[in-house]
Parts: sequence; structure tokens; C-alpha cells
Amino acid sequence: MPILVMKFGGTSVADLDRIRNAAEKVRAEVERGYDVIVIVSAMSGKTNELVGLVEGTSPLFDAREYDAVVSSGENVTAGLMSLTLQEMGIPARSWQGWQVPVKTTSAHSAARIEDIPRDHIDQKFAEGMRVAVIAGFQGISDEGRITTLGRGGSDTTAVAFAAAFAAERCDIYTDVNGVYTTDPRITKKARKLDRIALEEMLELASLGAKVLQTRSVELAMRYKVRLRVLSSFEQNTETSGTLVCDEEEIMESNVVSGVAHSRDEAKMTLVSVADRPGIAAAIFGPLSEAGVNVDMIVQNISDDGRTDMTFSCPTDQVLRAERAMTEAKERGEINFHELIADTEVCKVSVVGIGMRSHAGVAAQMFKALRDENINIKVISTSEIKISVLIDRKYMELAVQALHDAFDLQGNDS
Amino acid sequence: MPILVMKFGGTSVADLDRIRNAAEKVRAEVERGYDVIVIVSAMSGKTNELVGLVEGTSPLFDAREYDAVVSSGENVTAGLMSLTLQEMGIPARSWQGWQVPVKTTSAHSAARIEDIPRDHIDQKFAEGMRVAVIAGFQGISDEGRITTLGRGGSDTTAVAFAAAFAAERCDIYTDVNGVYTTDPRITKKARKLDRIALEEMLELASLGAKVLQTRSVELAMRYKVRLRVLSSFEQNTETSGTLVCDEEEIMESNVVSGVAHSRDEAKMTLVSVADRPGIAAAIFGPLSEAGVNVDMIVQNISDDGRTDMTFSCPTDQVLRAERAMTEAKERGEINFHELIADTEVCKVSVVGIGMRSHAGVAAQMFKALRDENINIKVISTSEIKISVLIDRKYMELAVQALHDAFDLQGNDS
Repeated sequence: MPILVMKFGGTSVADLDRIRNAAEKVRAEVERGYDVIVIVSAMSGKTNELVGLVEGTSPLFDAREYDAVVSSGENVTAGLMSLTLQEMGIPARSWQGWQVPVKTTSAHSAARIEDIPRDHIDQKFAEGMRVAVIAGFQGISDEGRITTLGRGGSDTTAVAFAAAFAAERCDIYTDVNGVYTTDPRITKKARKLDRIALEEMLELASLGAKVLQTRSVELAMRYKVRLRVLSSFEQNTETSGTLVCDEEEIMESNVVSGVAHSRDEAKMTLVSVADRPGIAAAIFGPLSEAGVNVDMIVQNISDDGRTDMTFSCPTDQVLRAERAMTEAKERGEINFHELIADTEVCKVSVVGIGMRSHAGVAAQMFKALRDENINIKVISTSEIKISVLIDRKYMELAVQALHDAFDLQGNDS
Repeated sequence: MPILVMKFGGTSVADLDRIRNAAEKVRAEVERGYDVIVIVSAMSGKTNELVGLVEGTSPLFDAREYDAVVSSGENVTAGLMSLTLQEMGIPARSWQGWQVPVKTTSAHSAARIEDIPRDHIDQKFAEGMRVAVIAGFQGISDEGRITTLGRGGSDTTAVAFAAAFAAERCDIYTDVNGVYTTDPRITKKARKLDRIALEEMLELASLGAKVLQTRSVELAMRYKVRLRVLSSFEQNTETSGTLVCDEEEIMESNVVSGVAHSRDEAKMTLVSVADRPGIAAAIFGPLSEAGVNVDMIVQNISDDGRTDMTFSCPTDQVLRAERAMTEAKERGEINFHELIADTEVCKVSVVGIGMRSHAGVAAQMFKALRDENINIKVISTSEIKISVLIDRKYMELAVQALHDAFDLQGNDS
């Protein structure tokens, strides 16, 4: 029988009523003829509760014990989902990560899945089981210890199972009914997309559209997994939600598919740095070691052998970045006159596969912002994305202006 | 290094402060030179919460999924205890049942431990680890599924580890400071015992003194494990609490060590049963099949080929017993005139190793009850125990009278 993977997030399994609601959706797919692999998150709030307990024991805790504690939330949901399906008369059983086993690296709290052997679950399907319920977010290391995949990791579990079992599709059930052209809280003109390319989704995910964990989209790209994002709280049909798929499945690519934003950005400028070979490494090496996630980088034109170096990072890493730069200066590795931190900025981006073959998108974006008198502080581009840093107070205005400029409300994909 | 097992019950690990308090007690033993195996229960209330969730899914739930869900409470405590010890600078790590592995039968929710391989934990002790923290109450079946040992099962886990690792002692930390001559809520004259024989403890546990799970005491007897019951909430010395040990370690055995009571007893009488060979089997077979735990049995003297058969069982099994007897009568397997259920009785027992070599204990007991005008309804005896059924309203009075009659207040063991 064809295999379908269905993943339910924390709000979709928050209590027994919601677990029953999710189980009804599983039942519908079983009745359509699928063997189903269900991936569950912890009931909403549970993971935070467990993380709070762990953090209460020690400021510098052992990540191996953290993983052992925090993974227990998914184990509870997996058992309850299996019991609920059994009560509906559907042959089901649960697996914890180590029982499959979901083999991962030993990078505790941020482990990567290395292998998912199929034999045990395949055998149970052959014996008549119709649903395998898997505790998401977790696996087991070579040392036999429990690992977790990082927050949002159940998305990655789902995609990895879909890849391993060559599933027809991987349905991600959540509390929104799909992927939108932009955040619907910012403009009511935001429109749900029927389809979006995996490459576009990857940019959107990494830009802070929190529908899917970034790594799960990377994995879906690598293994050509068809993803669908849809709501647990609506009646769905086979075409509900948003299909996140290979570019080739999308008839006509949009020049721009969506406008993303990220609120908590900071802009840091090292003023008057000596412009010499190796200076970038001397700056960004220490930042990386200090755990600063540098995003955009801009180097101004050199003047008299000195230059200004600007980069962006999350606002909560500004202090760490300042400390790293001051210490590098004290060690004599770099030299600058001043370090200016601007924590009142945000990032706005337009994303679209069609950009590759369509010139003038940047010009159109900059014109739309100029028409609203919004000053651009930093620009960075990739093949399918253009991002700008602007003052945070203009964020909503910029998103609305760009959504209009690229006619996203009416542009049916 | 000598090995000590320390078990902490749910109230002893109810929150992070109490876990720290328990960890301090572990630290003291490490500093005394022990390698320590710590067995933890779930934080108090957690197991009931999980059981409630499971029962909410289905009235007839799959015990395998029940075990997978309910065991997660102990996993959380094990990780938190290990983290707390690490924070104190003590090399520690946690094991879940399947990681050891604690091998059990497949009788889910009531599994029995079959084997605890030492090699993995021994190796870690050899490498410098000082504390192994074990999630209690759980194990793994031959099929690779999680099992649990029944409520109170962490006591059994503790004794099984003490046996497997030839521990010097197994300390059971709880919310009382030892085993008493009787329930201190009934008489303030109740005195904590410094030592009690395992055989006596077994009778007391099965008579409803809820300090230890009955099976853990059976296991301790079989493997000659020295148990100590003591409080988590007091400053303890090496002689605190009550040592539950082999008879030979007790210099002079008490004739009577304690007075136990059990409130929820019912007395059932089948009036005028045909007295023929096989009649007992015809009565108690169906009761056993119906899941009735028959305790005391008395058969009156036969008269004209008919007799009265009296037995006791827990009050909440009376309806089940009545149904089983009525159905057996309808099938023609037994014949009786009437079935009388008296649900207003209780059981009071005196327990003591010294009874074996000391005549007259029963007479002394009956006299003490007669002096209080308490009528005895049923009597049953074992080698080291005498139990009587009496009206429930006299329970406290009987316990106090017997405690005085055997001079338990002053009788130092």
C-alpha cells in the first residue's frame, strides 16, 4: 500500500480532544488506502515545562541529560495517539526514537538524522498494522544515548521518515492553513499559496516565517519529498493547504512568491577598519567562535587604506558581538575607530524562483520603498531573494508596499 | 568501592528543591566512599496525571502503550537528578530502563524483572563515574517494548539493583522516618523500630502497611538484601530509620513486633453449603477467575452434610464475588441457601518472628480483645502472624489494646 506521512505539531495534540481530532484525520487517510506513519510533537507547553525544569538544575547543563528529559514529552503523545487510533478500531502502535531506531549524530540537542532502518516498521505493516506512530524530535546516538534534533525538530523527523519510506507525501498539520504571500497579521491582502517551490520555502523558513523548521525543508529538497502544510482545525480535501514541491511541479513560477520579514535584527558597523588581506577572516572568525549568527555583510569602498565593515545579527547577540570585537582589538588582531550598534532595524525580503529569469526585481523593490520614503540601510541578494535592512518602525509599511508592488494579492500561482 | 543503592519516592523528588535535597543525601554517601546507584520515582502526582490521560483515550487500553506513556515520568526525574548531581561536581549519568537494560517479562503493567546486566554500569564506575541514576518502575521486554512493574514498582527496581550489584545496603527514602510498631495516626504510643526482620516486614506490607511494595520485600528476602527505610526530610545518621534485615541480624527477636490493620475488608458467608469433597475448589475457583483476592477462609463444622463457608476479600470486590457465586450456583456447580456479605468489618493482626518459639500469643491477643468486649468474627494464623476480623467501629480500640497488651511502646528491639 502507498505510504503517507502525517505530522501533528504541539497545538494539534494539545489535549485528548485534539488528539482525537488528529486521529480522525489519520483515519480518513487509512480509509483512502494509505498505510500511515504519524509523527507527533509534545503536547503544547510540555516541552517548555521540561526545558524549564532542566534549566532550573544548572546554568551549564549536560546536553545528554537535557535530551533524555525533554524527549519524554513526545513519548507521551505517541502512546496517547496510538491508543486513540486503537480505540477507533485502527491497528496502530507507537515507537520511540530508540525503538525504530532513528540513528543520529551525537551532537546532543542539535543532532542530525543519519539513518532510519525500515525493516521493523515494514514488517508490522506487512502483518496488518495500518498506522505507525513515531515520537518526533528524537533519536539515538552511536553511544546508545537519547538525542534531540533542536526545536521544531519533529518537522525534520517527518521529512526524514517520508524520505526513508518513499512516502507519497509528507503532510505537516499545524495551526495555520498553509503558506501565505506574507504575514496575514500585517496585511489582510495576504493570500494563501496553493503551491510553493521548496527553494522558495527554504528562503522563507530561514527568513523567519515559522511554518517549517529550516532543516526539514533542506532535507525535503535533498530527497525530493513533497511536503504539504495544512490546518488541523479545518475540514481538508486533497488539495487543501499549500503544497511545497519541486519547482517542476509548478506550472508558471512567480517572479515574487512572498514577502518575508524578520523583526529582531541589529546592524553593527566597525568604523574605519584597516583594509588589508585577511581582514574579513580576522573579524568574522572571532564572531563565529563567540556564537554570533552573522547574516548580511557589507564592506564599503576603501578610502586611504581604511574601510567600514557592516554586518547584521539577531538583536540578542549584540552584546556577545561587541565583546568579541573588543577582545580581538585588545589582542591586536583587528583595529577600528568605533563600533556602532543599531538595534532598531528589521529585515524585509522578497522571495521568488522567477527572479532567476526576470530582471528588474531589485529596481522595482527599491522604487516601491523609495515611494514610501523608506531608507535602505543594507542590501543583500541571493539567486531567488533580495533582502534589505530598514528602520524597524517602517516594517509593516514596507511589507504592505512590497505586497502591493508585486501584485501578490491577485497573482494566482 | 562498595556500592550503595538509594531509592527516592515521589514526594522526595516532587520539585527541584526536593531533588536538590535528595542529591545532598547522595553526595554525603559518595563522600563516605560509596559508589551509588540512585533509583528515582516520578515527581509526585505525575504518574496519576499520565494514567488519567491514558484512561481518557479508551476504557480498554493497550497495556503496552500504557507502559510507554506512564514510564516517562521516571525518565524526567532521572535526568533531573543526574543534572543536579553534576551541578554539585559529582560525576553522574542517568539510565532509562531499556538502556541498562532492565530485562523483564512481557506482562505489561505488572512485569517482573528477570535480569539486570552489570557490565555497562560497572564500566562507567571503573571510568570514574560515582553515581548511576536509574529511572525506576520500568524495564524492557524480549520484544523490545517498554514494560512497567506496577504501582510502587520503584521499590522493586531498587531491591533488584541492590541484589544484582551486591550492594552493601538498599536505602529507601520516603516521607516517613521508618517502620512503626503500629500506625502512629491511631496511637501516639506507636514506636519506630530500629530493626525488623524481612519476614515480619513481608507480613506487614501485605497487611496494608504501605511503606514498601510487597514484591520488593519478597525479592529482598530471596537475595538477602539489607533494606533500610528512612526519611528524606530529616538529617540522618548511619543508624537512622528502620533496618529491614535478615532475622540473624536481630539480637533478640520480639514476640510481637507490630500491630497492623486493614480497613477495607468484607466478610462473605455462604450459608448451608453441601459439604462434599471438592466443594472448596468449586467455590474458590470461580472467585479466583473473577479476580477476587480472597484472604482469610474459615469452614464451620459440618452438620447433616452441610456447612457454612466464610471468607474475606476487599470491600470493592464484594459485588464481583456475589456475581461469581450466583453464577456458579446457576450452573449447578455449588449449592447454598444464602450469601451474606458483611462490609462493616476490618482486619487487625499481630506480627512477630518470636511467635514461632513462644506459645500463648494467640491467647494473650484474644484476652486483650475480650477485655475490651470486642467480638472476633474470623481468625486466621500463620507462623509469625495472627489476624482477626472484627467490627470496623472497634478498629482503633483493638489496635490500641493490642499495642498495650504486647508492651510495644517500651519494648526496644
